[in-house]
Amino acid sequence: MNPTTASPRTLEWIGGIDGSVRLIDQTRLPTELVYRDCQTVEEVWEAIKVLRVRGAPAIGVAAAMGVVVGLKNQTAAERETFFLRLTEVTRYLASSRPTAVNLFWALERMEGTAQNHPAPFQPQAMRQRLLQEALAIEAEDRQMCRDIGRHGAEVVPDSGGVLTHCNAGGLATADYGTALAVLYSAAEQGKRFSVYADETRPLLQGARLTAWELSQRGLDVTLICDSTAAQVMKEGRIGMVVVGADRIAANGDTANKIGTYGVALLAQAHGIPFYVAAPSSTFDLSLPNGDAIPIEQRDPAEITRGFGKQTAPEGIKVYNPAFDVTPARLITGLITERGIIRPVTADGIRRMVSAASGLALADAISEREAASGGVR
Amino acid sequence: MNPTTASPRTLEWIGGIDGSVRLIDQTRLPTELVYRDCQTVEEVWEAIKVLRVRGAPAIGVAAAMGVVVGLKNQTAAERETFFLRLTEVTRYLASSRPTAVNLFWALERMEGTAQNHPAPFQPQAMRQRLLQEALAIEAEDRQMCRDIGRHGAEVVPDSGGVLTHCNAGGLATADYGTALAVLYSAAEQGKRFSVYADETRPLLQGARLTAWELSQRGLDVTLICDSTAAQVMKEGRIGMVVVGADRIAANGDTANKIGTYGVALLAQAHGIPFYVAAPSSTFDLSLPNGDAIPIEQRDPAEITRGFGKQTAPEGIKVYNPAFDVTPARLITGLITERGIIRPVTADGIRRMVSAASGLALADAISEREAASGGVR
Repeated sequence: MNPTTASPRTLEWIGGIDGSVRLIDQTRLPTELVYRDCQTVEEVWEAIKVLRVRGAPAIGVAAAMGVVVGLKNQTAAERETFFLRLTEVTRYLASSRPTAVNLFWALERMEGTAQNHPAPFQPQAMRQRLLQEALAIEAEDRQMCRDIGRHGAEVVPDSGGVLTHCNAGGLATADYGTALAVLYSAAEQGKRFSVYADETRPLLQGARLTAWELSQRGLDVTLICDSTAAQVMKEGRIGMVVVGADRIAANGDTANKIGTYGVALLAQAHGIPFYVAAPSSTFDLSLPNGDAIPIEQRDPAEITRGFGKQTAPEGIKVYNPAFDVTPARLITGLITERGIIRPVTADGIRRMVSAASGLALADAISEREAASGGVR
Repeated sequence: MNPTTASPRTLEWIGGIDGSVRLIDQTRLPTELVYRDCQTVEEVWEAIKVLRVRGAPAIGVAAAMGVVVGLKNQTAAERETFFLRLTEVTRYLASSRPTAVNLFWALERMEGTAQNHPAPFQPQAMRQRLLQEALAIEAEDRQMCRDIGRHGAEVVPDSGGVLTHCNAGGLATADYGTALAVLYSAAEQGKRFSVYADETRPLLQGARLTAWELSQRGLDVTLICDSTAAQVMKEGRIGMVVVGADRIAANGDTANKIGTYGVALLAQAHGIPFYVAAPSSTFDLSLPNGDAIPIEQRDPAEITRGFGKQTAPEGIKVYNPAFDVTPARLITGLITERGIIRPVTADGIRRMVSAASGLALADAISEREAASGGVR
C-alpha cells in the first residue's frame, strides 16, 4: 500500500495572468486520463455544468480561476467597465450549478477582493490581484484537505471497512479530498481498513472516480451497487461511513449527492457512525436548516441513456434530483479543517465555522443561541 | 388509463409434445420486443442463467417446460433410461440459478409427477403427462397472479404513490405478476395512485422491465435511481412499498433482489407499510429463517461494464450479490394467492402455505409451534 503516491492535479492554473485553467476531464475517467485547458469563461462554465470538474471544493477553485479567465480582455478597461464585466462573469459562473455553496462562496470572495482593492484603479494590477486570490483559494483548499485528513483520521477504525458514497476525494478538491482525505491520512498513519465504494448512480462517480483514485493510491477498495450498501452493513463489514458535502446549513443538515440520506438512515439502523467531511467554505450559515438548500434537478437522460445505451422505455417519466439533504440528527460528526464538530449542533457549527473565517466568536454566537445551547 | 390491455406472453409452450418454450428475451427490453424459441434444454438453461427469463414464478414455469424439452428424444426409451435422463435434466436445470426456490419446487413437482405415474411405463404417455403437468404449473401461475392481485389490491392506497423494486410483474410470471398484479388489480378497481420504480442496478430490471410493462398497461410510473428511494419517501410521495420474492423462509425472512432489504429499512424509518407479494411456491418451509437461503453471486462485469461501456477501473474488486434477505420484522404483510399473512409469523405462514399445498393443517402445525405462537 502506498497511499502517498502523487496523483495528477485535479485542476491548476497554467501560465501567467493570461493563462488558463487546466483540469482533468472527469467525464472520461476511469478509462482515459485526459486534460482540458479552459481558455474562456464559457469553457469553465461548461466544464462545471457537465461535471468535467465536480465536487464542491474543486468547483469553488474552478470558479475563482474562471473569474480570472473571464477578465482576460480587460487589460485597458476603465474601472466601471471592469466591474461590470466582473459582475457579468460571476453571475454567469454562478448559474452553472445551484447546490454546492463553495461556488458562490468563491465568487463572492473574488468580488470582495476586487472591491477592497486599494485605489487608484489599474486593470492589470487588479487582474494580478484576482489571480493571486484564486491561487490563494487553491492553496487554502490544498491545506484544507490535509487538515481535514489529519483531524478525521482519528475516527477511522483500525480494521474492518469504511463505506463512502459518490466522490469526495482528490478529484473533488485541489488536493486529496475531504472524505477520502480522512482515509488517506488514516492509511498514512498505518491504519488498516478496506473501503467500500457505492457506485453512485446515475453518473457513477463512485465507480469511475472513487474506485479509481483509491486504487491509484494503493488503498484496498471494493466497488458495490448503491443498493448493496445495506447488505454490506448487515454483514458487519462496515465500521464507519464518511461522505463529503455540497452545502451544510447552520443546524448541520447536509446536502450531498443523491443517496447520501438513504445511506445515513441505513447506518443509523445498523448502529454505524456516519461522518461528513467538509471545509468551512461548504457551510452556509445563512440557511437555518436544510429545507432551504436548492436541489439541482438533472437531465432524465442521465438515467434513461446512461453510458451509451437506452435502458428505459422511450418517454418514461423520470425524477432525477442530484442531491438530497441528510438531517443533522443522523450525522455523528462533521469533520472540518479546524476539527470535528461532534455532536452536530448549531452552536458547535457556529463556533467552528466562525473561528475558521476569522470572525470574532462574540459576533458569531448570539446571546440567545448560547443560552439555549443551540437550535437543533 | 387502461390497465387491462393485454400484454405479450412472457413465456408459453409452442406446439405439441415435440414443441418448444417461446419466451420474451428480456435482456433486449425495453428497446426491442424479441421472442426466443428454446428447442433444447441447454437453451432453456441458458435463458434462465443469463436472465432472458427471470422472476421466481416465471423461472419455475420455464424449468417445468424445460424438463419436457429435455425429454424430447426419449420417445422409445426404457423406464430406467427415461428416469436417468429425467434426473439428468432436472439436475442440470437446477444448476442454472440458486436463489429462487420456485425453480426447485417446479422441478420436484415434475419428478414427482413422473414417479407417481401409473404403470405400465410408456415413454410417450409419460411425456404427454409431463407436458400436461408443465402446462398445469403455467395455468396455476396465471391463476395465482389474479388471486394475489385480488387479495393485495385492498392494501393499495387510493391516492399517492407506491414504490417497487426490481420487476415482480407480468415479465416475472406467466400472467401479470405478483407485486405488480397487486397494482394492476387495484387500478382495475379504479384506485388512483402513481408508481415509483427503482431502476434496480446492476441489471436495471426496474428501468427496463417494470417501467416498460407499467406504462404499456397505462399506469402512471416514474423512474428513479435506487439511491433516490429514501428521498421520495422523505418527500411524502410514498404510501406503500410492494415487492416480489425469490424465496421466503418459514419465519417470513424474504430473499429478493439486492436492494430490497435497504428499501425495507427506509420504509420502516418513514413509517411506510412494506409488503411482499408471492405465491405459496415461493415459500421454503424447510428453512427456519433467511440465514440459510443461498445467495447467488454474479459477474462483476454486470457492474463494471454494464450496458456497453466500461465504468470502473480495470481489475477493480467488486461485490455483486444478486439478492439480499429482508427480515420478517420489516415486512408488514405477505400477499399470497390465498390471502394476506399479516402480521408475518411462522405460524401464520405455516397455516396459509400448508392449506395452499393441500396438506392437512393438523400435519402442518406442530403442537410445539402452535403452543409457542410461532417462532418469529
